[in-house]
Amino acid sequence: MTHPHTPTLDRVAGPSDLRGMNDADLGRVADELRAEVISAVSETGGHLGSSLGVVELTVALHAVFNTPHDKLIFDVGHQCYPHKVLTGRRDRIRSLRQGGGLSGFTKRAESDFDPFGAAHSSTSISAALGFTVGRDMGQSTGDAIAVIGDGAISAGMAYEAMNNAGAEGRRLFVILNDNEMSIAPPVGAMSKYMSGLYTETPLGTLKDIADGFERALPGPLRDHARRARQLVTGMPGGGTLFEELGFSYIGPIDGHDMGQLLSVLRAAKARATGPVLIHCCTVKGKGYAPAETSADKYHGVGKFDVVSGAQAKSKPGAPSYTAVFGQALEAEAARDPRVVAVTAAMPSGTGLDAMTARFPKRVFDVGIAEQHGVTFAAGMAASGLKPFCAIYSTFLQRGYDQIVHDVALQKLPVRFAIDRAGLVGADGATHAGSFDVAFLSNLPGFVVMAAGDEAELMHMVATAAEYDAGPIAFRYPRGEGTGIELPERGQPLEIGKGRVVAEGSTVALLSFGAHLSECRLAAQQLEAKGISVTIADARFAKPLDTDLIAQLADHHAALITVEQGAQGGFGAMVLHHLAATGRLDRGLAIRTMTLPDRFIEQASPAAMYADAGLNADTIAEVAQAALGVSSLRLHSA
Amino acid sequence: MTHPHTPTLDRVAGPSDLRGMNDADLGRVADELRAEVISAVSETGGHLGSSLGVVELTVALHAVFNTPHDKLIFDVGHQCYPHKVLTGRRDRIRSLRQGGGLSGFTKRAESDFDPFGAAHSSTSISAALGFTVGRDMGQSTGDAIAVIGDGAISAGMAYEAMNNAGAEGRRLFVILNDNEMSIAPPVGAMSKYMSGLYTETPLGTLKDIADGFERALPGPLRDHARRARQLVTGMPGGGTLFEELGFSYIGPIDGHDMGQLLSVLRAAKARATGPVLIHCCTVKGKGYAPAETSADKYHGVGKFDVVSGAQAKSKPGAPSYTAVFGQALEAEAARDPRVVAVTAAMPSGTGLDAMTARFPKRVFDVGIAEQHGVTFAAGMAASGLKPFCAIYSTFLQRGYDQIVHDVALQKLPVRFAIDRAGLVGADGATHAGSFDVAFLSNLPGFVVMAAGDEAELMHMVATAAEYDAGPIAFRYPRGEGTGIELPERGQPLEIGKGRVVAEGSTVALLSFGAHLSECRLAAQQLEAKGISVTIADARFAKPLDTDLIAQLADHHAALITVEQGAQGGFGAMVLHHLAATGRLDRGLAIRTMTLPDRFIEQASPAAMYADAGLNADTIAEVAQAALGVSSLRLHSA
Repeated sequence: MTHPHTPTLDRVAGPSDLRGMNDADLGRVADELRAEVISAVSETGGHLGSSLGVVELTVALHAVFNTPHDKLIFDVGHQCYPHKVLTGRRDRIRSLRQGGGLSGFTKRAESDFDPFGAAHSSTSISAALGFTVGRDMGQSTGDAIAVIGDGAISAGMAYEAMNNAGAEGRRLFVILNDNEMSIAPPVGAMSKYMSGLYTETPLGTLKDIADGFERALPGPLRDHARRARQLVTGMPGGGTLFEELGFSYIGPIDGHDMGQLLSVLRAAKARATGPVLIHCCTVKGKGYAPAETSADKYHGVGKFDVVSGAQAKSKPGAPSYTAVFGQALEAEAARDPRVVAVTAAMPSGTGLDAMTARFPKRVFDVGIAEQHGVTFAAGMAASGLKPFCAIYSTFLQRGYDQIVHDVALQKLPVRFAIDRAGLVGADGATHAGSFDVAFLSNLPGFVVMAAGDEAELMHMVATAAEYDAGPIAFRYPRGEGTGIELPERGQPLEIGKGRVVAEGSTVALLSFGAHLSECRLAAQQLEAKGISVTIADARFAKPLDTDLIAQLADHHAALITVEQGAQGGFGAMVLHHLAATGRLDRGLAIRTMTLPDRFIEQASPAAMYADAGLNADTIAEVAQAALGVSSLRLHSA
Repeated sequence: MTHPHTPTLDRVAGPSDLRGMNDADLGRVADELRAEVISAVSETGGHLGSSLGVVELTVALHAVFNTPHDKLIFDVGHQCYPHKVLTGRRDRIRSLRQGGGLSGFTKRAESDFDPFGAAHSSTSISAALGFTVGRDMGQSTGDAIAVIGDGAISAGMAYEAMNNAGAEGRRLFVILNDNEMSIAPPVGAMSKYMSGLYTETPLGTLKDIADGFERALPGPLRDHARRARQLVTGMPGGGTLFEELGFSYIGPIDGHDMGQLLSVLRAAKARATGPVLIHCCTVKGKGYAPAETSADKYHGVGKFDVVSGAQAKSKPGAPSYTAVFGQALEAEAARDPRVVAVTAAMPSGTGLDAMTARFPKRVFDVGIAEQHGVTFAAGMAASGLKPFCAIYSTFLQRGYDQIVHDVALQKLPVRFAIDRAGLVGADGATHAGSFDVAFLSNLPGFVVMAAGDEAELMHMVATAAEYDAGPIAFRYPRGEGTGIELPERGQPLEIGKGRVVAEGSTVALLSFGAHLSECRLAAQQLEAKGISVTIADARFAKPLDTDLIAQLADHHAALITVEQGAQGGFGAMVLHHLAATGRLDRGLAIRTMTLPDRFIEQASPAAMYADAGLNADTIAEVAQAALGVSSLRLHSA
């Protein structure tokens, strides 16, 4: 692998080196930084498109602001690769998203230059406002700058933050990184003109000047400029939502023009007294043709060949859980016209694209708006429709109150399809789906399922489609299924009934979810040692299959529950039940295997589960240990 | 108690009766309805001010729209008393908020006229959009009308919903009930003029006409009108956020002028093809002088005398937990300038008014914006401040993802002061603080406490102020403390250490939180039967006091955990720990007493806990039962 030639970038050990460079050198740094990022991501895979879009912006921000004393906060954080290269992490950039390597997001534990980590969307303005209060109250911190995309800023949380920041009126910088809107030449021209003005004009009058400039343009240019402003502001009058909320608005500017960026940022830094929004137009995948021309702008890529852009193909395996869900839901939608689906800006990631292709009017993408999405689904359910709310476990946390208050309390039959349950690999701890079983299983009236394999997932989709008595959820992991043969269509399960997968006599493994395969492997290890194992698939954390649990508890020397989630979930429900029914009074060698009480860092999912102490080996070990104690007790009795 | 004379209202058995009345009769209905509501709430207490503000609006909506086929959805729902009187619940209106009586909010289970219940803010537009999709997809449902206040519409969730509704473009009505802005006469005049136009003019041109009307006004009137529009829209140009989001905007109109209301609603109903926002100005407490002139507009009142407005004084008791918290935090703020506080539109309810009075710049009211509030606090913590995030348990659900992603994952020392833990009385199931222990205790690195009494609460405030290693939460219930003597100042507790309150030998009651007092009563009952009881106050659900638990488990015949919360919380953590350490292998008569697996309806807190099977009597019963089994086992051994 040949690395790019980067003589200017090589002079940058940290952002302070940028501050001694002239503008031309900074432009060179940006060019070389782009080549470096492309080269690195070609080896690791990752969020290439977003990172390429902010190369110039990142250089300019570090050159103008005094990081890390000034706090640069990237929203979501997947656009941070250039930032990591510039902030002392260049030597590790080719370990991005690998076990033991750099996080694919910003992360406080990784660097002082990451003042506030991210991964979920739309948090940066809130955090930046927090830092400005700290600064104003005498903490040792400088300016705060939030860099947020046009998708992320549309979420309710960002609106709440701007609303509050505008009212507070503190000096604060929000960079709107708008990569949806391409910059047509006239707009670029206007922006250039404007950025020239910025260097000499008080901030308060910039908007007036921009308006005047617009009027002075010749006809066609003027129309373009006006249209751009309308697109930006949504309002013919040229006011902006940001101004309404109390921000000074500057823009749009060309986020790939280093001269413009530097002059605008310098002017803003020198003169701002309150909150300022700088609207910066960028191109996702900028400067790398295969990315710029691909439909998804190489948003997330695997390893690829730099010259051709060809991405390494993953070897064909079993269909993913996501795909199986998508096809099963499409089939249910074909059978029942009341079936509709909701996604929060993840139509492809959730597998809803299959249903969208066939029934486009029955799939609702509400944007990054989980709160609204859940209650919107509740409203549809109340009207008689059958909504499936397809949201990753980690993002469903955003709609928790709506799940409690609008769905559970009203017993509305909203179906929750919870993808990315458990540990998820390269996206690491921030994206782990650890808590959904715990935060759903204690809600009165909820049905909570987890799929033991992808055929089970099909049955659970059918179960949810049929079930109309209240809320119902089913979870399934990221990645490939087990390769099990799939039925032609799913069959509704009996609510609250698990199944025995293998009958044995000594140890009972009671699995909830896709670690069923690990339980099978653990059983093989145990059987090899002469220990007879029953494997059961609980299917339901709520309602529990109490007959199954009693049978397992009463006829085995040890009972081990296994789930891909944190404490307080399935195992806790089993324990509560056993305690309430007095079954623990007379002794039961029960162990509840869950994710441990710490966040698990990125690696392959298998390596993460090994780190978590939750795989076939550890299941077998725990079973043996429990059995040891239990046998001892039996022998001594 | 004499009831008001209501001859016209008496003719209204349901909304359909309104539709046969002329406008003058509808005005009379409104006047009599107001008197009826005042009379009823004087007997029950409740949200009087909000309800008086929407009397005319409620009559007009039911007269114009075809409820319940058309879906009328009140946001928050505490303004629904006039609606309840009109929709067949007049005979029960004097049971508002009582055990077995009408809910203080809208509630699906109560009436077909309550298509979507509420209590938490800002959900109505999402739900209404869901109904419009159902209607457009052939479900038997008519128009959807959301009635939402100016506070509630500022939340991120409402913004997400409007954003989505605007993009969907479906016929949908949002009534903005704006009672912050008083209607000065000029605006009233303009509104009257405009409402005359509405009856004859296509909807699309209404705004243009309003603009023209404004220009045609004489100077002072024009200035008033303009200022009103600016206040409303926030924008000098007179565009509105609502228009930006794709809504047609009508208003402002006088929400107490029945003629205006009827003509505008009729015109909107007749002609709307997409989403319409009707901006309706109302006066909180309207038509009842004591309410209109009081500072809080009788937002929530106890029983009162109709003639004088004098509210029944509650008999002086122990200071409330809320007040104790507020004073303790004020004291900590005085000692440490880094202590700051965040509230989401509840400065008084959370007790932060004490700190606000003394340190106004260190208390941040972010509005109804729990998502932002939590991450804002995380940002302040990252800057070196000591933020206390004071949010009721039930509303903290709104910030759950931010707690996981921004606070716990980053180990930031945000302090969560969780008021209204457990059952809360008249506000009923929607406001119960049931789930916080469960959704916090499995988050790595969190410290989770509950106060056994108000002196303990002071110690926990001190503990949280001192503790800087990560997130820490403490919960406490609504209402009066126990009356225990309070220390001069709280003393930091050792993290993860509980305390033994009473030493016994047979049964151990391990309390987490303010049901400690119920445990004491239960112990008295048990001791009276000759059963020796140990009472322990766990203080911490996380980290657990494992020494204390081992001691209790090993030296008592039964161990009962007691908490004011749902399954999956403190008791579950104790069970997980006991299972993991093998302590259950040899038998343990353990019972985990939690809230039951159903929502508990409004009543007095004591009655709610009795209904929930969670008070001194049931604790004693459960202990005896556990002991019976356990004793049997011991005897037979």
